[in-house]
Amino acid sequence: MSERTEINTLGEFGLIDHLTRNIELQNASSLLGVGDDAAVIDHFGRQTVVSTDLLIEGVHFDLAYTPLKHLGYKSVVVNLSDIYAMNATPTQIILSIGISSRFSVEALDEFYEGVYAACSKYNVDLVGGDTASSQKGFIISVTALGEVAPDKFVKRSTAKKGDLLCVSGDLGAAYVGLLFLEREKKIFLESPDVQPDLEGEGYVIGRLLKPEARRDIISFFAEKELLPTSMMDISDGLSSEILHICNDSNLGCVLYEEKIPVAEDTRNAAFKFQIDPTACSLSGGEDYELLFTISQEDHDKLVLNEQISVVGYMTEPEAGQHIITKSGNKHPITAQGWNHLTSG
Amino acid sequence: MSERTEINTLGEFGLIDHLTRNIELQNASSLLGVGDDAAVIDHFGRQTVVSTDLLIEGVHFDLAYTPLKHLGYKSVVVNLSDIYAMNATPTQIILSIGISSRFSVEALDEFYEGVYAACSKYNVDLVGGDTASSQKGFIISVTALGEVAPDKFVKRSTAKKGDLLCVSGDLGAAYVGLLFLEREKKIFLESPDVQPDLEGEGYVIGRLLKPEARRDIISFFAEKELLPTSMMDISDGLSSEILHICNDSNLGCVLYEEKIPVAEDTRNAAFKFQIDPTACSLSGGEDYELLFTISQEDHDKLVLNEQISVVGYMTEPEAGQHIITKSGNKHPITAQGWNHLTSG
Repeated sequence: MSERTEINTLGEFGLIDHLTRNIELQNASSLLGVGDDAAVIDHFGRQTVVSTDLLIEGVHFDLAYTPLKHLGYKSVVVNLSDIYAMNATPTQIILSIGISSRFSVEALDEFYEGVYAACSKYNVDLVGGDTASSQKGFIISVTALGEVAPDKFVKRSTAKKGDLLCVSGDLGAAYVGLLFLEREKKIFLESPDVQPDLEGEGYVIGRLLKPEARRDIISFFAEKELLPTSMMDISDGLSSEILHICNDSNLGCVLYEEKIPVAEDTRNAAFKFQIDPTACSLSGGEDYELLFTISQEDHDKLVLNEQISVVGYMTEPEAGQHIITKSGNKHPITAQGWNHLTSG
Repeated sequence: MSERTEINTLGEFGLIDHLTRNIELQNASSLLGVGDDAAVIDHFGRQTVVSTDLLIEGVHFDLAYTPLKHLGYKSVVVNLSDIYAMNATPTQIILSIGISSRFSVEALDEFYEGVYAACSKYNVDLVGGDTASSQKGFIISVTALGEVAPDKFVKRSTAKKGDLLCVSGDLGAAYVGLLFLEREKKIFLESPDVQPDLEGEGYVIGRLLKPEARRDIISFFAEKELLPTSMMDISDGLSSEILHICNDSNLGCVLYEEKIPVAEDTRNAAFKFQIDPTACSLSGGEDYELLFTISQEDHDKLVLNEQISVVGYMTEPEAGQHIITKSGNKHPITAQGWNHLTSG
């Protein structure tokens, strides 16, 4: 090799695009490949949805403040969230782990307790996996499979101009939870005798350590016969996800800051760190809420659901992607929305 | 936690049994769960087979002598081998990688070249995955999906007394290939100026670095309307795999050393290391051949296939699992057959 291109010059999404740009699907059953929350595979009319995540200690989680049971639970839930984000119902998971000798059987039992708790809650079966030695750190690979009625799966690329932009639940909490736990870890490392001060922060910490996937929203869609025009889950922060839908659907959008749902607990907790709760929502990530678009004519179907907020609408691509702040200013949405807002 | 049980007291299979002992499948579509080459999922009469492997640098592969393109190819093939081992046809794969900053985009391109070469050869689609940072080492997680006609999947647990024990291709080559590469790595580290001496060892090294999955055998079964009574692929060595089939089917067996297929190149290469080629077959692993049992009445269907060897037969469980050596001695088969044979 004569050239060397650093991976960080492409970024994660650029790298995936680069590595998968020449794929030509060979099997008629491969309905949807790389580039959405999950792949879709046809089985003679019925459709299987498949999604996977690789979680690495020190990169995706810190065992200093993540109980193993919570980690097991979350490892499953984040994958199920991807399946729901396709408007599908998860049915099976496959779990592989890489473990070093520092783990005991009892520690793994705790991890699996969380895994099975998530399986039980979401009615999915653990049907396979692999167990490997790791030289360093704990490695978790989860693949989830789900079912969806023929052609009811919802992609990121099919939003239409004029559609309403919606989110489920509330945003930003997991990021503020992370700030608390990182602060307590630092204090603990410096002064092991100081007791952790996390009182009153149960909500934001719970959102980080034990997120739930929005099965209820998918059930609501089914009940109301409402098919979103596009959907994905919010794992990287609202800004980044909105840009995915806009880019994949070739549209612009307007997002209203005042419409972004933020819980009172999150707001109070963010102020303790002197950060803007909106910034946490836009760039924080790990909320595992759903971001979706619906036709304006479906708006009435949402009215009674307090778990869904309309936060903006889709525009022609030339208008770009913008957020209207509470003070009425207009800023471009960027994947680094946090910097923009704080300096704007 | 008051107790600490070391993982190595259970072993890999004991650990999996321990962690999955309480699983009760909840979904009617989960036809076969943990404990075989792959899981089987029903989709309204059609059946999907799913298998996964987690490969970790320094544990499963050594980049000092594994070209990245070969590694990409092999990562896919070893999973496809599990799908074929269910008598199914692979259709899709999902690939996640964990990479440290020491990898360049060009290095990843080489790895993916191998991945796509395998996809193309075996007519499977890469439909999804995840890309993560790794703090140390290259991590590869592959999940393969396949299709099988209703109830034609073949488990490990369904061999019958009197069935013939068969293997495809030849065994032991990959292990001898590994010995050569480990030797050359050691020499290189001690004296970087010495040129590697691998001439004439192309066969055994190729078997290690670029294995193939036995699609041809599955096609042969279909053509002959031959349904094996049990099957698995040989990734850990013949002894270990035979014991899996015996234990899961609750049977004994007799294996004839002289019937074990070993290539001439493997035999010659093994002698250079003064090791017994039979020991390489029994304990070497990574050959990715198929081990299966058939009813005696199907024996005639095998006659014209030179890629299949009958190596023994299944007995009642009380008779245990034994190998009859070339000299006529009878030894118990153990998962550490290598030690047994060399000391026997």
